[in-house]
Amino acid sequence: MFITFLSDFGLQDEYVGTCHGVIKLIAPEADVIDITHGIEPQRVLQGALVLANTLPYMPTGVHLAVVDPGVGSQRRALALLSGDGRFFVGPDNGLLLPAAERLGGITAAHELTNPEFALPSVSRTFHGRDLFAPAAAHVALGITLDRLGPPLDPDALVRVEFPDPEIDPGAIRATVLDVDRFGNLELNLTRDHLQRGGAIAGTQVELEYLGERYYAVVARTFADARPGELILYEDSYRWISVAISEGSACELLVLAPGDELVIHLPLP
Amino acid sequence: MFITFLSDFGLQDEYVGTCHGVIKLIAPEADVIDITHGIEPQRVLQGALVLANTLPYMPTGVHLAVVDPGVGSQRRALALLSGDGRFFVGPDNGLLLPAAERLGGITAAHELTNPEFALPSVSRTFHGRDLFAPAAAHVALGITLDRLGPPLDPDALVRVEFPDPEIDPGAIRATVLDVDRFGNLELNLTRDHLQRGGAIAGTQVELEYLGERYYAVVARTFADARPGELILYEDSYRWISVAISEGSACELLVLAPGDELVIHLPLP
Amino acid sequence: MFITFLSDFGLQDEYVGTCHGVIKLIAPEADVIDITHGIEPQRVLQGALVLANTLPYMPTGVHLAVVDPGVGSQRRALALLSGDGRFFVGPDNGLLLPAAERLGGITAAHELTNPEFALPSVSRTFHGRDLFAPAAAHVALGITLDRLGPPLDPDALVRVEFPDPEIDPGAIRATVLDVDRFGNLELNLTRDHLQRGGAIAGTQVELEYLGERYYAVVARTFADARPGELILYEDSYRWISVAISEGSACELLVLAPGDELVIHLPLP
Repeated sequence: MFITFLSDFGLQDEYVGTCHGVIKLIAPEADVIDITHGIEPQRVLQGALVLANTLPYMPTGVHLAVVDPGVGSQRRALALLSGDGRFFVGPDNGLLLPAAERLGGITAAHELTNPEFALPSVSRTFHGRDLFAPAAAHVALGITLDRLGPPLDPDALVRVEFPDPEIDPGAIRATVLDVDRFGNLELNLTRDHLQRGGAIAGTQVELEYLGERYYAVVARTFADARPGELILYEDSYRWISVAISEGSACELLVLAPGDELVIHLPLP
Repeated sequence: MFITFLSDFGLQDEYVGTCHGVIKLIAPEADVIDITHGIEPQRVLQGALVLANTLPYMPTGVHLAVVDPGVGSQRRALALLSGDGRFFVGPDNGLLLPAAERLGGITAAHELTNPEFALPSVSRTFHGRDLFAPAAAHVALGITLDRLGPPLDPDALVRVEFPDPEIDPGAIRATVLDVDRFGNLELNLTRDHLQRGGAIAGTQVELEYLGERYYAVVARTFADARPGELILYEDSYRWISVAISEGSACELLVLAPGDELVIHLPLP
Repeated sequence: MFITFLSDFGLQDEYVGTCHGVIKLIAPEADVIDITHGIEPQRVLQGALVLANTLPYMPTGVHLAVVDPGVGSQRRALALLSGDGRFFVGPDNGLLLPAAERLGGITAAHELTNPEFALPSVSRTFHGRDLFAPAAAHVALGITLDRLGPPLDPDALVRVEFPDPEIDPGAIRATVLDVDRFGNLELNLTRDHLQRGGAIAGTQVELEYLGERYYAVVARTFADARPGELILYEDSYRWISVAISEGSACELLVLAPGDELVIHLPLP
């Protein structure tokens, strides 16, 4: 059985390795795939987005995700089953829902309350190790969700809101969803949004950020641009991203997830 | 058979991957769990602490650990067996001992001298690849420790000293053991130390560092504090840590492992 | 079957994890060894060097490598077979060749053109996920290279040039190949080059960089030097490296891969 694992724990510390150890203590045969542990600390929205983006590329199994600013508070711990037969384990803060809804919708939701499937002592600050990893390992062994705790109404689960772009004649206000190691800035836009604004491959636009404006061009791929040129392109998850051919857009436009920029389009 | 692996190699370079390759060359069926490779370069004390903290969460197996500032010198290479049936492989610099002693004590110690269980050519600078990973893989295959080299007296092994806190009326001088990616500062204190100083949940204290003083409060969990408030809490390994609710203590108090601070307690 | 995996994707983002997922979707039993994902973005030469350095320590299998500045352009995608029975999958930009040539030479080369062994939709920017990882997984399952696409002439493949040192009487001009996390600077020199210049263990030399000169000594190992002393030593891949005993050479000499320095040798 596969267990995929996404978190904001980073790889500098021993948090991820400790969760791997706990999984293997309980389910020695489980095969753990680390999706990423580089989610920005406590950014639930980014974690939810990356989980929904990547799960279509993951084998069916148990999908463990921990980005958990509410650890130690009253937030609930969840196990879900989605319509296509995948299991999800993580906090009830919206992290799991976009992925589960994309993969067939939520067909069962249970709160993790049965201490039989947690470590004997559950700390106040590391539920990844003490609660979520053990639950994921037990589900991988075949424990059914009803044994983990009482059912929950899927409509009562906490949700995250993805920011929507504002589309006006001649201008789109977009939000940065993610920045990758190459300095590419993923926006909350699809090709449809650009096309509704009249921008297609080859269209010259201007990006406005902090009062400065930068020329950019809508391109199909990096190879369509001159080195150093700012481009807007559809990234591999079908979001529009800002990049610099052979460079880092994030070094020029110092933007972080959650920041907004305006794309000025040529008026028709 | 499980092999856990802890080092200060980091993940930027190919050192960790090369050791994985060597393990799989020798023991293709071994299941390797990376505890962490983010130990600060050559900080044996930190490595020893993290190994002792995390091994109770790891399945029994061979525990490979390499933080090795003495590579190429006369320091010995070790394989140990602990009272609860775990094997340890690493340098004789104190790295392995706190974990082995916590897990049943050392019941056998051998020096790695038999070239049959190392790579054919042992470099002067990368014993992780050439000596320790091969030895761990052979132990995972069932080679007994006496075949690796001559026995050593456990009392003659090199030890690391954990710093002790200084506890005076009204003040505790503590040392930072570790800083995690969330900026939490783990101290060489337990809840007992605080209680002996009269501090319990809710007690207001002052932290002194570099002549500056900062208010903090003893809290059971992050959720007990206001955003931005400095807290002292018992972390998931039962050490007292300094944190800022919804922030990074390390950004305010720029401390590194080994640095000291003073906790001023209210006089009774 | 083992699949080794090297890339410049880093571990902050989900790129590596997504490729792992795709491999496991196709070949659930494959055992993936991550060599490193810390190659500097788009530095094909560094990737080629690390792959050639490390593969002798890896079990035979499929060797997937992705450092791919030309993704989305007309550069070809490759699968190779080497003389010692190893398979290679990656872009046709020179990345794979030094390793394949070191391991028996190229006995077959095929272009990846058969869509049956790629994901159903191949993006323009993430061939690691959509093209290379699926091909590697299918080869691990036993698909022969001729089914992946038409054969290519090995002599027509793109090659990278390793920089050669310039050796003059009394001076060697060398290039930095790599910098590791310990700040050690790997040069494009072997012990032979130093010996031809008359430098052996114990020889005092001077390093010149940006007009400054620094004393250094040729040493066999870190333990032969005083703390803080600059040394030249043969690293574990048999390249000459610059290091500081108990310190970071890269903090003193701020050099990056591709930078040059001059080693002044005593005249005989």
